[in-house]
Amino acid sequence: MSLRDKIAVACPNGLGLCVGLDPVLSKMPEKFRSAKNPLLEFNLSIIEATTQFASAYKPNIAFYEAHGAAGWIQLKNTIEAIPKNKVIIVDAKRGDIGNTAKAYAIAMFDELNADMVTVNPYLGKDSLTPFTLNADKGIFVLALTSNPGSADIQELTSSGEKIYSHVVKMAMSLNQNKNIGLVIGATKPEILPEILDNAEGLPLLIPGIGAQGGSVESLKAAMRGYPNRGFVNVSRQIIYASHSGNYEIAVHESAMKIHGELAR
Amino acid sequence: MSLRDKIAVACPNGLGLCVGLDPVLSKMPEKFRSAKNPLLEFNLSIIEATTQFASAYKPNIAFYEAHGAAGWIQLKNTIEAIPKNKVIIVDAKRGDIGNTAKAYAIAMFDELNADMVTVNPYLGKDSLTPFTLNADKGIFVLALTSNPGSADIQELTSSGEKIYSHVVKMAMSLNQNKNIGLVIGATKPEILPEILDNAEGLPLLIPGIGAQGGSVESLKAAMRGYPNRGFVNVSRQIIYASHSGNYEIAVHESAMKIHGELAR
Repeated sequence: MSLRDKIAVACPNGLGLCVGLDPVLSKMPEKFRSAKNPLLEFNLSIIEATTQFASAYKPNIAFYEAHGAAGWIQLKNTIEAIPKNKVIIVDAKRGDIGNTAKAYAIAMFDELNADMVTVNPYLGKDSLTPFTLNADKGIFVLALTSNPGSADIQELTSSGEKIYSHVVKMAMSLNQNKNIGLVIGATKPEILPEILDNAEGLPLLIPGIGAQGGSVESLKAAMRGYPNRGFVNVSRQIIYASHSGNYEIAVHESAMKIHGELAR
Repeated sequence: MSLRDKIAVACPNGLGLCVGLDPVLSKMPEKFRSAKNPLLEFNLSIIEATTQFASAYKPNIAFYEAHGAAGWIQLKNTIEAIPKNKVIIVDAKRGDIGNTAKAYAIAMFDELNADMVTVNPYLGKDSLTPFTLNADKGIFVLALTSNPGSADIQELTSSGEKIYSHVVKMAMSLNQNKNIGLVIGATKPEILPEILDNAEGLPLLIPGIGAQGGSVESLKAAMRGYPNRGFVNVSRQIIYASHSGNYEIAVHESAMKIHGELAR
């Protein structure tokens, strides 16, 4: 199945839930912290509790690299355990010159078996091309992120257009294999229509709901009338929904609630 | 010793040689390919052959991640083997929101024990701050890279200044702990004075010499009169200087030659 088709199947209603797998020892329930592979065990319980509602899973590689090689192995084992009908997005925000980008593409797509990886556009088009050559794998290009610092570079204006709009054009120009998407934060929904007018067919990865302050309602309103599919990523609000013994139920219910808001 | 002092000692003549440790199986001499830990064994031979001339070593993490956990372990063991008077720069080009940047800082500084790490400014100042809190560790911020794609975003103009100049200002504003540097490609030496006029005291990491086309002579001419220290990174021209049985001698001589050009 092509990547475009896999996304369409995983995300039939346009907006699908992406569960962010960002394991932090101090935040997870006690019972996992003493496990031999705490990141993996925690993730397996999250996947089980949310699989009914998730279109995609997105481990952010930083939380695994903080544990070195042991973290990398747990990341790989986590990805192997994700059901095959889910889109696996490795949040890596990589970007380097062509020679090196090729090595990163091998790491993300061949070694870790991600379907998609997030990439940073600051080094330009030639730094992203090596990630786009296989139509079964793809990238989400950082355009407008959800943090306050997005104003520092991304929202500067050049030749009458914001830098993130230049990035959207770069992404469109890379889309021959229909495997390019955009990262657009939910914290600035008012900007979405301007971006979507110039992003025909590109799927979105949308962080910023929940802990970061974005709302599903304003996001849906902003995307009304556009055919772009989107993965709404939620991490902390789901995976740290509770610390109690019944935390799996809290995780399940939190995912169900957001899934319901997206589907309504 | 503070990071600033470590850089000054490692790099007494202003411009020091940084050897890029970017191991690729197909490019290294046959005898390493069959080793149990080919990346590590290759790196150890490179370090031995170049230590007399190197101010710094810079492994690019992509070439290790392409080998998964085994690559990560070999990266860590490589870093442990680098003499303590060298500056260890992990070329990772990381950048993420604050919460995640903190995890990357742990991965790079605590887990891998890098002195400095390269970071990407596209997510803004708050994405870099977590890397700057320990004055013994620091960052090289990507400003103007050496690849053709640097024109796509970095050289756009906003409010009368190039994007890379906005990044230089951001870097200066982060320099309270005197642990910030800039990545500036050697492929555009004519731009250096404009940058150095606004980068008081910031050390530079300068890729682009050798395989990418930059020259030591034009670099030295452009930096004349500026007190900024700089690490001139060379990877392929040194580490793949030869494929023959006597390749250690070729590596040694290639490093000696560039060191001589820098010191002259």
